Amino acid sequence: MAHDAAHDAPGQHSAGDPALYPADRVARAQQAARAAGLDALLVSPGPDLRYLTGYEALPLERLTCLVAPAEGAPFLVVPLLEQPAAEASPVGALDIEIVPWRETEDPYALVASRLPRGLGRVGLDNHMFAEKVLAFRDALPGTEQALAGQVIGELRIRKSAAEVAALLEAAEAIDKVHSAVEEWLRPGRTEREVGRDIADAITAAGHATVDFVIVASGPNGASPHAEVSDRVIREGEPVVVDIGGTMPSGYCSDSTRNYCVGRPPARYESLYEVLLAAQKEQCDAVGPGVTAEALDAVGRDLIAEAGYGDYFVHRTGHGIGLETHEEPYIVAGSSRPLEPGMAFSIEPGIYLPGEFGARIEDIAVCTADGGERLNLTSRELRILAG
Amino acid sequence: MAHDAAHDAPGQHSAGDPALYPADRVARAQQAARAAGLDALLVSPGPDLRYLTGYEALPLERLTCLVAPAEGAPFLVVPLLEQPAAEASPVGALDIEIVPWRETEDPYALVASRLPRGLGRVGLDNHMFAEKVLAFRDALPGTEQALAGQVIGELRIRKSAAEVAALLEAAEAIDKVHSAVEEWLRPGRTEREVGRDIADAITAAGHATVDFVIVASGPNGASPHAEVSDRVIREGEPVVVDIGGTMPSGYCSDSTRNYCVGRPPARYESLYEVLLAAQKEQCDAVGPGVTAEALDAVGRDLIAEAGYGDYFVHRTGHGIGLETHEEPYIVAGSSRPLEPGMAFSIEPGIYLPGEFGARIEDIAVCTADGGERLNLTSRELRILAG
Repeated sequence: MAHDAAHDAPGQHSAGDPALYPADRVARAQQAARAAGLDALLVSPGPDLRYLTGYEALPLERLTCLVAPAEGAPFLVVPLLEQPAAEASPVGALDIEIVPWRETEDPYALVASRLPRGLGRVGLDNHMFAEKVLAFRDALPGTEQALAGQVIGELRIRKSAAEVAALLEAAEAIDKVHSAVEEWLRPGRTEREVGRDIADAITAAGHATVDFVIVASGPNGASPHAEVSDRVIREGEPVVVDIGGTMPSGYCSDSTRNYCVGRPPARYESLYEVLLAAQKEQCDAVGPGVTAEALDAVGRDLIAEAGYGDYFVHRTGHGIGLETHEEPYIVAGSSRPLEPGMAFSIEPGIYLPGEFGARIEDIAVCTADGGERLNLTSRELRILAG
Repeated sequence: MAHDAAHDAPGQHSAGDPALYPADRVARAQQAARAAGLDALLVSPGPDLRYLTGYEALPLERLTCLVAPAEGAPFLVVPLLEQPAAEASPVGALDIEIVPWRETEDPYALVASRLPRGLGRVGLDNHMFAEKVLAFRDALPGTEQALAGQVIGELRIRKSAAEVAALLEAAEAIDKVHSAVEEWLRPGRTEREVGRDIADAITAAGHATVDFVIVASGPNGASPHAEVSDRVIREGEPVVVDIGGTMPSGYCSDSTRNYCVGRPPARYESLYEVLLAAQKEQCDAVGPGVTAEALDAVGRDLIAEAGYGDYFVHRTGHGIGLETHEEPYIVAGSSRPLEPGMAFSIEPGIYLPGEFGARIEDIAVCTADGGERLNLTSRELRILAG
């Protein structure tokens, strides 16, 4: 029998810290739903549910769902066997009725029966599984389905001081790992061997889970999302190390640095200087009112001027919080202006197929009068002794 | 930058073994889609995509999607930056065109433009995120959305010999952990401390990931899905240990055993005898043609006769394969007859609120003439020395 804690390393707590998960969030979401013309929010396990209630549960086949009507009292539908866990979770301390359903009941009909008839429009959490989306479609005929993200995402996108503190704690933990990479990265070892040591260090630094470990050496660095491989790292080869995890608080880390044992090729060094300048320029440009696309363009223009425009194949960054990737995306075409409390990665990269690649990534937070970088290890290429 | 390997422990491979992931599965799914009246299957990252292609990718916000029209050639839409990873994955060896999309393109419109106009009905993989479901709904107006599970689930539910071998390998790994629980379970230690040691052992036994660790002592055992807590385990308290992980092959383990340091209460001993007999009777009843609800009833009746009917609050079991929970569910109301190759848990439990609980869980496979149990550690209550 699998339970909710699949992504929660045993030994890590998942309790809701009231400063991080204040009790008024469901009410705020209901208010925002009214304003957006949604008659109810349906939120299954995942980051939205955790954000609203502090309840950490994995999406499984049995329906667990927070039902928050625009008007009226919210309730949480849970499988009967999850009832004790739900009551023991932070939800138990909130003013939310817990409604269990028995193994042979239809929980979608149960939700429908407790909602007003003739509901016009409901918002589903963005990560709800298709099987649940279609079951609600059939249980609520005539009701239009929209995304709850337009409401909950707008709350999540502006981090509170406690959330920024949680992101800073995560950044400090991953910085600690980057500071020790030279202990493990040596020529003659494989990416996989180095990755395993880094994964252990991510946990040792206080993360509840290791979310990803990229150790991409030489030509592998030219694939932005390379996996670790059995490739043996050689002297003089640049190595992209992109790592992150989730803290017991629920908040995520994500940082990329570049390493080389011995001197890299001269062409790489000049490329790296361009990237370093572009990333710094982007970090310096963060501030309220700057649009996501403008921030994306700042570094992209500088990279293009140096002749590498075709080799920066992805957006500049992604928001971060309870998910590693969330709003705001720092991407061409997004005219969203940055606001204080928004947190996101700034990670331009240059990738020369068959040769090598480089990417520099920090998490930044928009403040009232500019930006603050949370990752503080040096962004320079780290030359290691062999 | 997070990548695909979030649930793939670094150091573990995710390559497609052709015996486990044969190359004809997409074609078989297309054929089944035709028979089911689906004009195309849309499969995002998750167990269905891995089953069909061997490609292991996490569901992220950027669209990766296998498009398998009922008639015509299948193709895989991927974000441009995932193209090298997709080509290096088992998909690269299949006859599937990889179609990259650029950061500022609309991948849903891209999929729609490559499908025939006026598609009647498409099947979405059961775990597709709501944000993608609704984006496809809007990109394919007039096309009815159904679940691909009715087609892909029917393929996945009958395990090949190679899949049964992979499940057996997983069962042997988790059995190894149960065989060593006495090394860690001692009075005076907390559930969390014991859980941490067990998690390490799950990895050491060859799992790529630890999926769940339940160590539920005394009254905590009465919650079927208890988390580990800081509760100190005391002598004479029964402890439910329910653990599982995912092997590098992609296949999962899941087994529950019950422990006690010293003698448990007499009432628990008599309850345990009932449970043991019920679970054995259910394992013995497995065979082709037996329905899921009949198998559920076998043990439930015996438990009810002993007066514990109200305390067996969940179904008997769940299918297992590339997911810990999948079809077939062994539950009242399911008239599905078992067939050779179906693999599932048999895990009756009795839970006395405030006192204690017990659950015994094995993975079983239906064979041509009966059933085979994959977990082979003793199901007796394990009395440990203090």
